[in-house]
Amino acid sequence: MSDPLNVLSDKRQTGHDPPDDPRSVGWTRPQRVVLADERNPLPLDGGGTLQPVTVEFETYGELSPARDNAVLIFHALSGDAHAAGWCAAAGEGNRPWRKARPGWWDTAIGPGKAFDTSRYQVICANVMGSCYGTTGPSSINPATGQPYALSFPVVTVGDWVRLQVRLLDHLGIERLLGAAGGSLGGQQVIELGLAYPERVKGLIVLAASPRLSAQGLAFNTVARHAIATDPHFHGGNYYGQSEQPDRGLGIARMIGHITYLSETSMQAKFGRRLQDRERLGYTFDVDFQVESYLGHQAQAFGERFDANSYLYITKAMDYYDAANWGEGDLRAACRRAQGSWLVTSFTSDWLYPPWACRELVDALCANHRRVTYIDIESSYGHDAFLLEVETTEQLMRDFLAGVAGSGR
Amino acid sequence: MSDPLNVLSDKRQTGHDPPDDPRSVGWTRPQRVVLADERNPLPLDGGGTLQPVTVEFETYGELSPARDNAVLIFHALSGDAHAAGWCAAAGEGNRPWRKARPGWWDTAIGPGKAFDTSRYQVICANVMGSCYGTTGPSSINPATGQPYALSFPVVTVGDWVRLQVRLLDHLGIERLLGAAGGSLGGQQVIELGLAYPERVKGLIVLAASPRLSAQGLAFNTVARHAIATDPHFHGGNYYGQSEQPDRGLGIARMIGHITYLSETSMQAKFGRRLQDRERLGYTFDVDFQVESYLGHQAQAFGERFDANSYLYITKAMDYYDAANWGEGDLRAACRRAQGSWLVTSFTSDWLYPPWACRELVDALCANHRRVTYIDIESSYGHDAFLLEVETTEQLMRDFLAGVAGSGR
Repeated sequence: MSDPLNVLSDKRQTGHDPPDDPRSVGWTRPQRVVLADERNPLPLDGGGTLQPVTVEFETYGELSPARDNAVLIFHALSGDAHAAGWCAAAGEGNRPWRKARPGWWDTAIGPGKAFDTSRYQVICANVMGSCYGTTGPSSINPATGQPYALSFPVVTVGDWVRLQVRLLDHLGIERLLGAAGGSLGGQQVIELGLAYPERVKGLIVLAASPRLSAQGLAFNTVARHAIATDPHFHGGNYYGQSEQPDRGLGIARMIGHITYLSETSMQAKFGRRLQDRERLGYTFDVDFQVESYLGHQAQAFGERFDANSYLYITKAMDYYDAANWGEGDLRAACRRAQGSWLVTSFTSDWLYPPWACRELVDALCANHRRVTYIDIESSYGHDAFLLEVETTEQLMRDFLAGVAGSGR
Repeated sequence: MSDPLNVLSDKRQTGHDPPDDPRSVGWTRPQRVVLADERNPLPLDGGGTLQPVTVEFETYGELSPARDNAVLIFHALSGDAHAAGWCAAAGEGNRPWRKARPGWWDTAIGPGKAFDTSRYQVICANVMGSCYGTTGPSSINPATGQPYALSFPVVTVGDWVRLQVRLLDHLGIERLLGAAGGSLGGQQVIELGLAYPERVKGLIVLAASPRLSAQGLAFNTVARHAIATDPHFHGGNYYGQSEQPDRGLGIARMIGHITYLSETSMQAKFGRRLQDRERLGYTFDVDFQVESYLGHQAQAFGERFDANSYLYITKAMDYYDAANWGEGDLRAACRRAQGSWLVTSFTSDWLYPPWACRELVDALCANHRRVTYIDIESSYGHDAFLLEVETTEQLMRDFLAGVAGSGR
């Protein structure tokens, strides 16, 4: 198979039975487990505790008898636990949005891929506050019988990782072989490495920095304002209403997409080309392809995501600052780090720009930690962490093999 | 006066009578003139005509007996005709928003300044579609007795410049000594130079390119969606209502401000500093200074700008493409150019980035036109065209003096 990715892509288009692909993990089905209850509530960074907390997760591959081959994958803002394979639950119950399509990191997870499921057990769980199975603002508050909406607590990346470690305990995994994630997922890797350094050997951080820049904070602020301004938002109490704040959520998504692409890739992809027309329309309808693209992204996102979840997850993104482990000093924070680190940035990424990613690398190096850093040349912007498949696959595969063979 | 700009700034703070400043043009009062009526309607690029069209403008300094010392200034997206001095009409009639503060380019216009009003007559007019005196969507449509709202035609930079040339005719100015503008104002300079090359000797284009990039189109699209999503927008028919679409307009303005600052300047100005608090709040209230800043900008803009005008002006910005004069070929378009050109970009400007400004310079050079191009080192982003006062003042002053002395 000389070009397996194209084969995969062909299969999607031709409707072949996906599990026939030897490099796919095949059909998957999410699992759920309650990881915080009355006797064991989850402490939160913002104060107080939360319970019950259900976590939705998927696993691919088998855990070794020594339980030492697990790799935990963290998803980004709009992701879910379905990281690889084909979701057998698509269309069922609360998953109308889960089209029969491969998981969000299917290019990296499967037999023979970077996260080789014939060697490793790969685990991915949905974050708290999301709308994909783990407890969040759309979950029913047992105290009221109503969805939490904005009465759900503001949760943090620290809370997320605390919960994921409970999942590891539940699965009987004392120490991960690896943890990996890009973007907000990469920030969870950093947090895992600083909060629970003894729980993981190899840490892979793609397109993520120790904290969001002022510009990143600004974009998230605007996104949240857009959601709150939607006439159907009703202060977050829109569940069960005939109309949802989809337009506001769509605007938030448009802003997101602008920050995921680079100026260069946007210019190459769309330029000033017109959409389905020969000349300007002189109305406020869509004229340009880029308008049409953003409009479609907005609409599709409204169909699959929850506006309140977007508020909570962007707030967690804003709040995250790895330097908190060193009382504001990132170098002091990284004294806690153990294990081996692979950090990659992407030259055209302006959401988690290379200079910000390098702050982590510098802080790890200052503490003489094992870190490999590569600034990957790419025009894809922030999306590069998912699109530069060949480069990242090889880096991650070799890094994991090294960690697995090191015996440390 | 060793540091006149600081003196000016001190005067603002201490409340001295502003016209006492020898470098201020003093009190100003806008004028209005009807430049299109039934007998002479204004032809529009989108087809059809518009009338009546009133134009609000200000002038500073005296027109020479030979009528050869006029400099036309073009304002950007949110600007108005009040480019310099202190508005004597502040607080009157429809100008509650006009605080007693200097015009938007007061640093450049006045006795002894770049646009030296003791030598030149400086003119600035409000663009069509705006809300500051020139006919726009908030104007009364005489056919209905109601504000136009979205029945106002989609107007273009070409239409604007056509109207400004009518203003020159009205003022008896056959040929301008100079035309100058930054951002969308700079695009009007380009358009004047291509549409009416015989009407201007020196053209000053700051932080403006021949056309907006895909990313620029994307930001404007999001801004318009935000306005249209405001519950008080009512399809643009909100005039006279108790509530205006100020939140949507505010979101549009926030997006604008993000694009006006550079990542570097935003990081330096705000970083991740908290606003009036010691620690994170764990609510959806304002935590960070950058959130507070954007919120204030949004609110202030809602008090002084009209949401429909924002739709029209951003659409004109999207539509502008100087290459249209060459059927899509900018070099062919620039064959039309005459006069001397001064083009400046700013290294950290990512709304009209240097590479895009250089396209104009390349096209002018290819046609052996007289052009001076400078990419000014600045961390201020797009705002640099207003903030790099010392550099731009010297450049513009010398350029204009050269044009005035050339006899061409």
